[in-house]
Amino acid sequence: MPDDPLVVFTPSGRRGRFGRGAQLLQAARELGVDLDSVCGGRGICTRCQVRIGEGAFAKHGIASSNDHLTPLTGAELRQRDGGLLKENRRLSCQARIGGDLVVDVPEESQVHRQIVRKRADARAVEVDPVVRPMYVEIPEPDMRDPASHLRRLEKALREAWGVTVAGVDAHVLRKLHKTLEVGGYKATVMVRRGKRLIDIRPGFHDKVHGLAVDVGSTTIAMHLCDLSTGEVLASAGRMNPQIRFGEDLMSRVSYAMMNEGGADAMTGAVREALNALARETAGEAGVALDDIMEVAIVGNPVMHHLVLGLDPAPLGFAPFALATDDATVMLASDIDLQLNPGARIYVLPCIAGHVGADAAGVVLSEMPYRNDEMTLIVDVGTNAEIVLGNKDRLLAASSPTGPAFEGAQISAGQRAAPGAIERVRIDPDTLEPRFKVIGDDRWSNEEGFDAEPTGVCGSGVIEALAEMYLTGLLTADGAIDGGMAERTGRVVREERTFAYVLRDGSPRIVVTQNDVRQIQLAKGALYAGARLLMDRMGVETVDRIALAGAFGSHIDTKRAMVLGMIPDCDPTKVGSAGNAAGDGARIALLNGGLRRELEDRVRRIEKIETAVEPRFQEHFVDAMAIPHKTAPYPHLAAAVALPGPKPARDGNEAGGERRKRRRREGRGHGEAAE
Amino acid sequence: MPDDPLVVFTPSGRRGRFGRGAQLLQAARELGVDLDSVCGGRGICTRCQVRIGEGAFAKHGIASSNDHLTPLTGAELRQRDGGLLKENRRLSCQARIGGDLVVDVPEESQVHRQIVRKRADARAVEVDPVVRPMYVEIPEPDMRDPASHLRRLEKALREAWGVTVAGVDAHVLRKLHKTLEVGGYKATVMVRRGKRLIDIRPGFHDKVHGLAVDVGSTTIAMHLCDLSTGEVLASAGRMNPQIRFGEDLMSRVSYAMMNEGGADAMTGAVREALNALARETAGEAGVALDDIMEVAIVGNPVMHHLVLGLDPAPLGFAPFALATDDATVMLASDIDLQLNPGARIYVLPCIAGHVGADAAGVVLSEMPYRNDEMTLIVDVGTNAEIVLGNKDRLLAASSPTGPAFEGAQISAGQRAAPGAIERVRIDPDTLEPRFKVIGDDRWSNEEGFDAEPTGVCGSGVIEALAEMYLTGLLTADGAIDGGMAERTGRVVREERTFAYVLRDGSPRIVVTQNDVRQIQLAKGALYAGARLLMDRMGVETVDRIALAGAFGSHIDTKRAMVLGMIPDCDPTKVGSAGNAAGDGARIALLNGGLRRELEDRVRRIEKIETAVEPRFQEHFVDAMAIPHKTAPYPHLAAAVALPGPKPARDGNEAGGERRKRRRREGRGHGEAAE
Repeated sequence: MPDDPLVVFTPSGRRGRFGRGAQLLQAARELGVDLDSVCGGRGICTRCQVRIGEGAFAKHGIASSNDHLTPLTGAELRQRDGGLLKENRRLSCQARIGGDLVVDVPEESQVHRQIVRKRADARAVEVDPVVRPMYVEIPEPDMRDPASHLRRLEKALREAWGVTVAGVDAHVLRKLHKTLEVGGYKATVMVRRGKRLIDIRPGFHDKVHGLAVDVGSTTIAMHLCDLSTGEVLASAGRMNPQIRFGEDLMSRVSYAMMNEGGADAMTGAVREALNALARETAGEAGVALDDIMEVAIVGNPVMHHLVLGLDPAPLGFAPFALATDDATVMLASDIDLQLNPGARIYVLPCIAGHVGADAAGVVLSEMPYRNDEMTLIVDVGTNAEIVLGNKDRLLAASSPTGPAFEGAQISAGQRAAPGAIERVRIDPDTLEPRFKVIGDDRWSNEEGFDAEPTGVCGSGVIEALAEMYLTGLLTADGAIDGGMAERTGRVVREERTFAYVLRDGSPRIVVTQNDVRQIQLAKGALYAGARLLMDRMGVETVDRIALAGAFGSHIDTKRAMVLGMIPDCDPTKVGSAGNAAGDGARIALLNGGLRRELEDRVRRIEKIETAVEPRFQEHFVDAMAIPHKTAPYPHLAAAVALPGPKPARDGNEAGGERRKRRRREGRGHGEAAE
Repeated sequence: MPDDPLVVFTPSGRRGRFGRGAQLLQAARELGVDLDSVCGGRGICTRCQVRIGEGAFAKHGIASSNDHLTPLTGAELRQRDGGLLKENRRLSCQARIGGDLVVDVPEESQVHRQIVRKRADARAVEVDPVVRPMYVEIPEPDMRDPASHLRRLEKALREAWGVTVAGVDAHVLRKLHKTLEVGGYKATVMVRRGKRLIDIRPGFHDKVHGLAVDVGSTTIAMHLCDLSTGEVLASAGRMNPQIRFGEDLMSRVSYAMMNEGGADAMTGAVREALNALARETAGEAGVALDDIMEVAIVGNPVMHHLVLGLDPAPLGFAPFALATDDATVMLASDIDLQLNPGARIYVLPCIAGHVGADAAGVVLSEMPYRNDEMTLIVDVGTNAEIVLGNKDRLLAASSPTGPAFEGAQISAGQRAAPGAIERVRIDPDTLEPRFKVIGDDRWSNEEGFDAEPTGVCGSGVIEALAEMYLTGLLTADGAIDGGMAERTGRVVREERTFAYVLRDGSPRIVVTQNDVRQIQLAKGALYAGARLLMDRMGVETVDRIALAGAFGSHIDTKRAMVLGMIPDCDPTKVGSAGNAAGDGARIALLNGGLRRELEDRVRRIEKIETAVEPRFQEHFVDAMAIPHKTAPYPHLAAAVALPGPKPARDGNEAGGERRKRRRREGRGHGEAAE
């Protein structure tokens, strides 16, 4: 009716006219305003609280006032006394419309509130809970209405919540009568995906939690989240206990193949660790395990199979066939997790035999499929998992980089742990190095530096090589320039090749010619994989590069480009994606709609198997050169003083030549790549 | 093309023209001809065999000949040698069309073949398997096609069977790789409801079995069936071990309420019995438990709850609220049955608190909802479960008959077991009885009869009373006519009332006045329940009456009507429904479509709670008289010489009056109700 009060909700701007006496919550629902409620409008949960704009709102053409609402009800006064209803707020289920209103729905009253993400550049993600608590009051059974408990419950859910039940867990049926009796026929039902009843509690109960789990080969990380707010309440991590069966993935697959019951033992170990982490995070957050209803899991294909109890043996040899690459939903109890009996696990889909649910997590976190930008995502481990694409098309591949980026097969290599050299700079004039060690914020040449380096981690090796190249110590074809021994004692002969001494002392830390070759092999494979996807995509450059995982967080992106690990790209568009796999698990935990979107996208990702692509070998050989034999690096050259191209000749002469030329051209002063 | 060969399939009559070289199986599928196949057209399963009509078929206008097909293939010759392909048969997946054909699809080659039912009047039921084996050959995994095992399997199922997979059991995922490897990437998948993968076996495997289970308070009966043919391969029964917790239902509910863990103990006992019966039937039929994929279960509400592990306590007192009345599907392992890990149980829906899944089984067996006839179905136990209706409307109620019909609370009453008198006739002139005893086919007055009766079962009591009424020994208001003691020594005084001596000797078996009262109470309740439904339905008569259960099988329907247990009806339309609940379980086991139909109908059944219907008491009082105080029995009167109506007076006088009148009217000779 035209003279009915006008109600405008902010920030959505949705508006409509409602009869006097209409419930504010009902008005919001009719307009499709995102307004939370657990108790279904009974003044219990306080989730639906709103703020009434006071004053004349010119842009809406109305005067809004708290006087345009019915007075505070008993329920509101009780909640205000209990501190749950803030000053200047109303419960929209209690307040009824008496005149024009501007109603502000605060962030915390929205169902689909935003998930807080730490990275400033991370795309905003909304909470879209997979499990929602719904409070209902059910008529007691009556001879005149001989409907079963379940049918009366279903009716109440339909009437109060618009829910059409499809499926009830057996344990819910088993405790249905007792729960209703204890709660005086008032109960809270946990509804999964808007249709399945997975738990029931007597009375009002709004605690619903979930776990986001990143099962890495080395460490397992878990976050306990509030499924309604998306908030992380506690986090914990521990070593993957499978390490005792094999340090790396392939040795664990071998263990499974060579030992009867080996896979089961590893499955048991990882599940035990998951239970321990669940107890730890729940304990820290003061949350009952029984209030955990959902778990989202990411992991590489071998971890994926071992957590689910699938035979990992086929992942040990070509063609690396996964048992399944679909997203998997099971009861948490199916993998022996001791949570609520109705709790489900959601394991993200795998992309291909070497591109697992962890890579799917990275894709979910980065969402390249929502952008126009041609995005290259690289997650470096023993294999590099590479995804390229945008909203039109996605390609994925795995490239056999080997473990050199993780510090293995490097003379002084070690894991990225305290004591590892992680940053290296070389003075272009003196050719003297300085470095940073994990655990100490100072450079080695700074006042008070007293860390004792024990080795060099992957990012340290990368930086050392990039600096050696930029300062002419390393030729474009990867030879340590023996001629430089004339200029500096840091270049020393070691048998038939040369080495660069990063640190003299105990332990002595050097970069050997073999170290360079290992990194060349690894970076050649990484580049070739990325290049193969670019070929397939038909692009010569990419708009954005995201480096995922721990390695991606530590690496200096410019120096990675100097080394030719990744294709040329605007350096301001190359960045770390952080722990993107873990972020993906958290997003999947908190947003059911985005799961569907991811599944749909993953299913359509085109998988490129590098091993059977003839051009891979070709790209690989070309990519062994630094930064590359033929590919141009215009963006990089604009930002960094690169050594000019030079023919591959004897390292000693070439080094000398280039040094001279660089001096002629007046470049090479200071630290070019800062 | 008009000059393509014409192919006519019989018995369906479906016809079409197909190009020369087309596969016969494919032609059948295109025409929608019901033709079985497990191996998907690879000549392995022999399920698709057909017979070619030879000769000129005038009505089809074509000449058919085996010469119009390609010659026998190697696969057909092998199957013929193995005895699996009969003479004059072809495998439709091997034979290709070369000319006009008339193709007969024998019964055993149809998917939807008829279930054999023993009762001649039982409606024909088709097999519509819930679980179907589907053989597939899957490409081996390949570097060029890095799809997961599951995805390749799904593709094969889609291409060979048109199946779109929705859901895979965890145990299938777990054994997927091994099974494919062992079977050389040939496997048979068990597909439930056309979409869910519940098992996988290496190679060709067409054994799929199921169990139909009737869980009675006293006995549990199980049939092992072939899910493809519907054939019963083995049957077994045993006492319900819950009897040690309580003889009847209410004492078991009490046990559950008064003993901590009592319900669990009874649940464990019945599940153990089900496992034992499964082993027994499987052993007898030579079927592996692992080949049992589906179980259909009926039972009264208390058995329903105890089998499912639901608390039966609420069924012990008004308002008798069930936990759920929906049909319930679970894993068989959820109720601890040791069958295939993918096996499901299907528990039929309950109708109301006292009208359980057994009654739903009766409804499914009788299918009143497919008829125009107004059908009354009565299943007599401690409570009589009553269903009335036709295709337009169904009503149901439970009537508190008490245990008298089962021989309890009767002076010489006993269960229907060897030694029990089950048939009684009384000579109208001599008033001498004769009877039959369970375990002996002869009447007690026949040559060679030497059974030693130990008591009288429910049907025996019913017959005795009906005969006593027909011969004037019993008045319409239920008094044993003491005046008859003048005519026969069989009528004797027992304290303040009279009794009729069925058998003099040891034990002496008499019908006492109290026995009559007990039966009057029981039959009054039964009649009143049926009458209440008729009132609600707005009908004065019913077209058909079906008496279900063991009692219904043994009772003489005419004498039941003489006694006024059931309303008047054409005696030719009153019959036993046999073990209708068990039949219903078997139908539900074998036909998935009929489950859906039943669920839909049961949900719409209107439940009448007799206890809160004011007219129930009124009907009950009127129905205490024999056959009834006011309701006419025209159909019965036309078939049986009923004693005329007489006012309720002193029994002695009344008996004398009626006897005289009957003699005057020249009726009452011989045995009126034969």
